[in-house]
Amino acid sequence: MAGPYVGTRDFYPEEMNFRNRMFGVLRRVCESYGYVEYSAPLLEPISLYESKSSEEIVNDQVYRFIDRGEREVAIRPEMTPTLARMVSSRIMELVRPVRWYSIANFMRYERPGKGRLREFFQLNADLMGPATPAADAEILSLLVDILTAFGAKSSDFKLRLSDRRLFDSYVKHSDKEVSRGIGRLLDKREKIGDTAFAEELAKIADADLVKRVNSFLTIKASDLSELGKNGAIDPAVGDHLNQVIEILAAQGKAEFVEFDPGIVRGFDYYTGLIFEVQDTHPENRRAICGGGRYDRLLGQMGKQEVPAIGFGLGDVTLEQFLTTRGLLATVVDKVGCFFILFPETRDTSLKIASDLRRAGILVETSLDTSVKIGKQMEAADKKNRKFVLMQGGDELARGVVRVKNLLTGEQVDVKPQDLAEKLR
Amino acid sequence: MAGPYVGTRDFYPEEMNFRNRMFGVLRRVCESYGYVEYSAPLLEPISLYESKSSEEIVNDQVYRFIDRGEREVAIRPEMTPTLARMVSSRIMELVRPVRWYSIANFMRYERPGKGRLREFFQLNADLMGPATPAADAEILSLLVDILTAFGAKSSDFKLRLSDRRLFDSYVKHSDKEVSRGIGRLLDKREKIGDTAFAEELAKIADADLVKRVNSFLTIKASDLSELGKNGAIDPAVGDHLNQVIEILAAQGKAEFVEFDPGIVRGFDYYTGLIFEVQDTHPENRRAICGGGRYDRLLGQMGKQEVPAIGFGLGDVTLEQFLTTRGLLATVVDKVGCFFILFPETRDTSLKIASDLRRAGILVETSLDTSVKIGKQMEAADKKNRKFVLMQGGDELARGVVRVKNLLTGEQVDVKPQDLAEKLR
Repeated sequence: MAGPYVGTRDFYPEEMNFRNRMFGVLRRVCESYGYVEYSAPLLEPISLYESKSSEEIVNDQVYRFIDRGEREVAIRPEMTPTLARMVSSRIMELVRPVRWYSIANFMRYERPGKGRLREFFQLNADLMGPATPAADAEILSLLVDILTAFGAKSSDFKLRLSDRRLFDSYVKHSDKEVSRGIGRLLDKREKIGDTAFAEELAKIADADLVKRVNSFLTIKASDLSELGKNGAIDPAVGDHLNQVIEILAAQGKAEFVEFDPGIVRGFDYYTGLIFEVQDTHPENRRAICGGGRYDRLLGQMGKQEVPAIGFGLGDVTLEQFLTTRGLLATVVDKVGCFFILFPETRDTSLKIASDLRRAGILVETSLDTSVKIGKQMEAADKKNRKFVLMQGGDELARGVVRVKNLLTGEQVDVKPQDLAEKLR
Repeated sequence: MAGPYVGTRDFYPEEMNFRNRMFGVLRRVCESYGYVEYSAPLLEPISLYESKSSEEIVNDQVYRFIDRGEREVAIRPEMTPTLARMVSSRIMELVRPVRWYSIANFMRYERPGKGRLREFFQLNADLMGPATPAADAEILSLLVDILTAFGAKSSDFKLRLSDRRLFDSYVKHSDKEVSRGIGRLLDKREKIGDTAFAEELAKIADADLVKRVNSFLTIKASDLSELGKNGAIDPAVGDHLNQVIEILAAQGKAEFVEFDPGIVRGFDYYTGLIFEVQDTHPENRRAICGGGRYDRLLGQMGKQEVPAIGFGLGDVTLEQFLTTRGLLATVVDKVGCFFILFPETRDTSLKIASDLRRAGILVETSLDTSVKIGKQMEAADKKNRKFVLMQGGDELARGVVRVKNLLTGEQVDVKPQDLAEKLR
């Protein structure tokens, strides 16, 4: 029988259990910061993404088609444009700061590989309101808290941050095409290595520009004030970044954060702080999460400009991050009961099962009274039930149910009205 | 600003809260029966639905397109074919009976209207294993328990059931096209009324067939044994149905269930018991849930035939059912804190907020120290926070945090290390 569509996954119950526990941690941490959950349509008009999302996504990766009503639609490849549409259409009613999160599925036509699938889930957490250092620090702090809630340590990942505006102001190159080319190159520097990076850079930039790019890459957080003072960068940008780092340090999160001028994020809507989480494991050296500030997107969609910052954390890369380190291990507890039915007492047994469920007890029943008890016990055990219940004609006559504990092997007879208590 | 794509919904936090609580009830009841959650890809090859799903869905309603790799794919319009694919591909490893559920989104190109959207969510619960009366009764019992868990009463809905095989054996008409036409007509009888039904029926059936159809519609559950004995229907089918009804009656669920020979379900894969839940409210007279037994679908997908039964319960109709009756009302509790920041103490306040979250307290902070306190108090109240926290220079000097209870207006100063305790 055929498997799932290429680049997508069947979630059998074990995988679904992992996914639910993983998403449970994401939800819990987001809600501890006062973020509330929203959700949105699977399809959007393609125009929502054009000129807003990254060119690569719109041209090469989005699943787009024409619906039966001649509308050009896309299966959402990311959440931010939808979020901006939703928030901007109710901007007058929403109490700011708006703190929203969602966990949804997305599709992109990519070559499936390690940490990369065509259908993936992503947590999106976004903060819309004042563009203060406190706002930027909150989003970064949330991200760090999510990863440490899974048990990750500062040696497991690095949160690298920069500001979209630094590159332009420092490198001072006016040709947009060249700037974009350098951006794309910076984005893959980690992957292709320093030598290939230098070669590629020399192809698109003259010697002077190469020099400025290389100098740019050596900037450290401690240089920012000085560079601002001597006019190499906008002093307000440097000061803002320094404050963000200070706030995180005051919360004991300095060890997770690293200023890195070399990071670039692909989305065209970013306007300020940009960041990504780098998995430090030698086999997974890639960004497991990325985000940034996009202060103009909401204004493009509605009447009002509202500063915003957020990130997307994908389930495929997060799962790889967690499993490589043995975080969020699969633990299967034995729970609930398996009630074995007999022909002559079927209806009363099913009635007891029904009453137990109403009392909050998980009760699964056998369904075929012709199957041997040994085989049913085996099924109960394989399904990780803790108790087996039985009421044959003899037990029925005595007004009891036989309870076998599959962990200890102990068997006792219990009156139906005492069962819920006993099984809890 | 544009709204969502036609027939789909934006879920703002209030709607999402409702959806989460609604799905929470579905999950809880399914799990009390030992059902485990699974999930599946959004896209499937169109061939998965062809000749298996209903003709109407495949021809008129499915969202289909050709992907960038020339594959013909569909956004899933229903779950059963995917479920059958997944189960049949692991049928040797899975412990039976297999009890699975999922809550997922689906798309069908329909004219949006009351209780009908293009993107909807659906609970699917399926039981794969022996095709015994106990199995059929369990699925029906689960469905009743779900609705009553929301507080629904037997006067709010009727679970109507029949068997796909009764019609053919009783009406004995060999022309498949005519049979299908009658089936479609029966399906809309409720909507078009008896007079229109009679007129339409006369157009496709001769006088003799019309008589047999009308006689068929008068069959009651109490007639089944007799009809079986005199050969008008298969006696095994009548006996099976009677046993299902008996088991439900033994669990005190007779009042919810009603034998109704006139129900038809559109899916071609059904082979035995079919059922639907009819909302009894005069404004919502439509099926809010439907299902049936499909004993041959898994065999068509894999090597092994495995009997199966299940249902789909859609969120749009369920929500309408619940809200019409005031079930699952929106309750917004005041929870957590809103921490107002001041310029001179920003970093220490943020540190306290961070510590509180780690202790399990929901803490939202203001972000802009230039906004007046009165306005911030208002925001905290509108966001339904229970406490406002503040630490100005004076409080910092005294080593305390000011806590204002927004319900009582009471204000107290609390030491940071005692805060978590106080706020719980």
